[in-house]
This record gives sequence, C-alpha cells and structure tokens, in this order.
Amino acid sequence: MDSTVTNAEKYFGQFCSLLAAYTRKTARLRDKADQLVKQLADFANTEGPEMRATVRDFVEDLAQVQDYRQAEVERLETKVVMPLKLYGAQIKQTRAEIKKFKRVQKNEIKQLEKLEKLRRKSPSDRQMISQAETNVQRASVDTGRTTHQLEETVDAFQRQKLRDLQRIFSDFVTIEMVFHAKAVEVYSRAFQTLEKYSPERDLQDFRAKMHGGSGHHLARPLLDASPSPCVPWPPGSQGAQSTVRSQRHEDEQSGDSVEEDLGGQEQGPRH
Amino acid sequence: MDSTVTNAEKYFGQFCSLLAAYTRKTARLRDKADQLVKQLADFANTEGPEMRATVRDFVEDLAQVQDYRQAEVERLETKVVMPLKLYGAQIKQTRAEIKKFKRVQKNEIKQLEKLEKLRRKSPSDRQMISQAETNVQRASVDTGRTTHQLEETVDAFQRQKLRDLQRIFSDFVTIEMVFHAKAVEVYSRAFQTLEKYSPERDLQDFRAKMHGGSGHHLARPLLDASPSPCVPWPPGSQGAQSTVRSQRHEDEQSGDSVEEDLGGQEQGPRH
Repeated sequence: MDSTVTNAEKYFGQFCSLLAAYTRKTARLRDKADQLVKQLADFANTEGPEMRATVRDFVEDLAQVQDYRQAEVERLETKVVMPLKLYGAQIKQTRAEIKKFKRVQKNEIKQLEKLEKLRRKSPSDRQMISQAETNVQRASVDTGRTTHQLEETVDAFQRQKLRDLQRIFSDFVTIEMVFHAKAVEVYSRAFQTLEKYSPERDLQDFRAKMHGGSGHHLARPLLDASPSPCVPWPPGSQGAQSTVRSQRHEDEQSGDSVEEDLGGQEQGPRH
Repeated sequence: MDSTVTNAEKYFGQFCSLLAAYTRKTARLRDKADQLVKQLADFANTEGPEMRATVRDFVEDLAQVQDYRQAEVERLETKVVMPLKLYGAQIKQTRAEIKKFKRVQKNEIKQLEKLEKLRRKSPSDRQMISQAETNVQRASVDTGRTTHQLEETVDAFQRQKLRDLQRIFSDFVTIEMVFHAKAVEVYSRAFQTLEKYSPERDLQDFRAKMHGGSGHHLARPLLDASPSPCVPWPPGSQGAQSTVRSQRHEDEQSGDSVEEDLGGQEQGPRH
C-alpha cells in the first residue's frame, strides 16, 4: 500500500513536470513561428504585387496554425498539467492515512510484546495478564478498524489514479489530435496558395522598375536610354482584401495576448 | 538593384535563423516527449496487467509520433534551413557584380568631369578634348556592357529568389503537413487504446495483492485473518506481445540516434 502511493507520487510528479516542459516547448515553437509571421509580413511589403499577395495569404495561414497552437498550449495547461499538479494534494492525504495506520499497528505490536513478557516473567499474575490481554484486544480492534479505513482509502486512491491516468492521457491525445488535424487543414490551404504563385508578373514589374527607376541612364548621356514603360497593375481588390484580413488577424493576436495573460508565466507568454 | 539584393540578404538571413530556431524547438519538443515515453514505460512495469498493456501500447504510439517528428526535423534541416543558408553564397556573388558596376560607373563620371573641365578651361585644345571625348565614349561603352551584365545577373537573381522562396516555403508546408497528418493518424489509434481501458480487472488484482501481500494480518493474531484469494490471470499473449513491440521500438530508437548524429549538433541530438 505504501509503495503504491510512493510510486504514484514519483511517477505522477515526473509526468507533471515533463508535460509542463512539453507545453512550454510548444509555446516556444509558437513564439518562433510568430516571429517568422512578422518577418514574412514585413518582407511581403518589399515584394511585387503577386508575391505580396501570396506571402500575405501564406502568413495568415501560418498565423492561424499558431493560434491553434496557442489553444493547444492553454488546453494542455488546463486539462493535463493542472490535474497532474492536483495529484499532490490527494497523495498527501493518502500518505497521512498510512502514517496513522502505522502508528496504530505499532501500538498493537507493543501491547503484544508486553503480554508475551508478562506471560514469561509472571505467568501466575492472572490479573496483570488479563489486563494486558484486554489491551492487546483493544489495540487489535483499533488496528482492524484503521486497516479497514486504510484499505478503503488506498482502494479509492488506486481507482481514482487509474481513472485519472486514463482521462489525463486521453485528454492529452485529444488536444494533440485536434491541433494536428487543424494544422493539416490550414497547411493544405497554404500549400495551394504557394503552388498557384507564378513569378512572371512580378518579374515584369521588377524589370520595369529596374530600367525606369534605378537612374543609371542619367550616367549614360551618350547612349540611347529611353525609359522603359512602367507595367501598370490595379492596386485594387487583391491588395485591399489582404490588408483587411491582416487587420482581422491582428485583432485575433491581441485577443490571444489577453487570454495568454490569464494563463500566467508558466506557458511562455506571447510577445 | 542594390536594395533588391540588400533586402534579400536581410530577409533570407532572418528566415534562415528563424526556421533554424523553429527546427531546434521542434527537436526540444521531441526530446521532452521521448523522456515522457521512457517514464511511462517505467511506470507501466509497476502497474496491473491491463494498465501495463494499455500504457505500453500508448507509449508505442507516442514514440512513433516522435519518430515522425524526428523525420520532420531532419527534413526541415535539409529542405528548408540548408537552401536558405546557401543563399548567402548567391547573394555574395551578386554583391560582387554590383560592386564592379559601381566602379565602372564611377569611371564614366570621372571621364565626363574631365571632359567638362577641359571644355571650360581649354576650349581651343581640340586634340585634348577629342582624346577626352574618346575616353568618355569608352567609359560609356564599358558602363553599358557592365550595366547589361548586371541587369541580367540581378534579373536572374530575382527570378531565382522568387522561385526559391516559393519552393522553400512549399517544402516547409509539405513537411509540416505530412508530420501533422501522421500525428493525427497515430493519435487516433492511441485514443482508442486509452478509451478501451477498464480499471476493474487491475483493481481486483490490486485488492488481492493488498489483502494477500501486505502482511498486516500477521499483526492481528487474535482476529480472523484468512488470506484473500489471489485472482489469477495469464501473463501470456498480451504481455509478451507488448515486450516484442517495445523491443522493436528500441531498435527504431537506436536507428534514429544514428541518423541524428549525421545531422550534427544544430538539431538537438536525441539522448
């Protein structure tokens, strides 16, 4: 019984700290991806219109995966790490019960030894022996009652432990499964965004800028240097849409930060 | 043209270091999960037969997800971080071309200034002016040729950059997508393993041990203490199968370590 509780204390403590570390590492991964999102968004502004639109769509998907990762972090904290932490209290209570049992058991042994001694040294002292026998019987009743209580406590503890273990790891698996499924969904969309990009229009644009905007023809007064035509494109629907979506995502991001603050330091706050 | 290359250098450098960090954090996550796998495997040995089989099956799935994560880490390293690193060389070459162009351009300006000065100070020295005009024309031809070469280089650089960017991030998304899809698959199986666990048989076993093995009835000589029946179960098929599978996994693990060693320190070797 003692080893059952000691064992549970040891392993549940390890599961708790390992899963807390796992959650923190997940938060670190989210932080790095968030930084990549920011850099990619900056970069998009320096590129041609097609690449700009493509990177903005991609960045939105990448950011969404991080939002799901953030939800993963919060749920791991609440449904996996916290329940494992609460085990500490339950184990403490069961430990106290075991201590009580050991005390009662020790007393019974003491009374038994007393009786044995009396029987050996003063076998004729009927009154003393009778008294000692009563003490032993009382101690035995105590032990019996305490043992029964303890058995019930340890039995409940063990039942709870097995159920909790099943529930906590089921929750872990569910949280991970939901995150991975969402990630597959979002990345499938991101893949299509990247696949349909064609650099031709951006290259035309780039060449037009290179010939029209670099100013090197000013240094060639003796050579024919007619300014190249500036390929026009509508800065309309696509660009505007991206900004709106990007705005929406920024709102989401600040919403996440608030949630994160509630979660505390443990899970590695977004910055 | 200069800003195109400077910009690419800046952003590709950032993408490279962020994606290298992302890969390292993924490796750290894998390490934590590997530690959890070890602890759970240890714990399984201390539990009743049903929980032991359940945890062993679960641990196998958890370890398999880490194997997929290891593949993810290796592929990110090879198909995302390395190509971004190689960009450094390409940028260096383009930078050298730009430097050459600037030198040639500077010479043309110098020749032009010389000609202007001669025209102002010695407008009658036809021979000197004619020589200076020839020098300016030569310098102009040089500038024209170098400019053309440079435009071609920068054009190729830009085309390559856009294509590489598309390819690298497509590869990133594909690698992530494959990992997440595999994780969903394995965790679905793990979820079923955990769901079908019932603690009843383990609790019967535990109670039998508690009554039969704790020895407390020896301290109760005056009370009725008949030893409880020890519920028997076959230690057969299920247990043996688990061990074999666990063995197979250990082989996989050591295989991974070898692969990992090839990858070097960067991606956080398994231990």
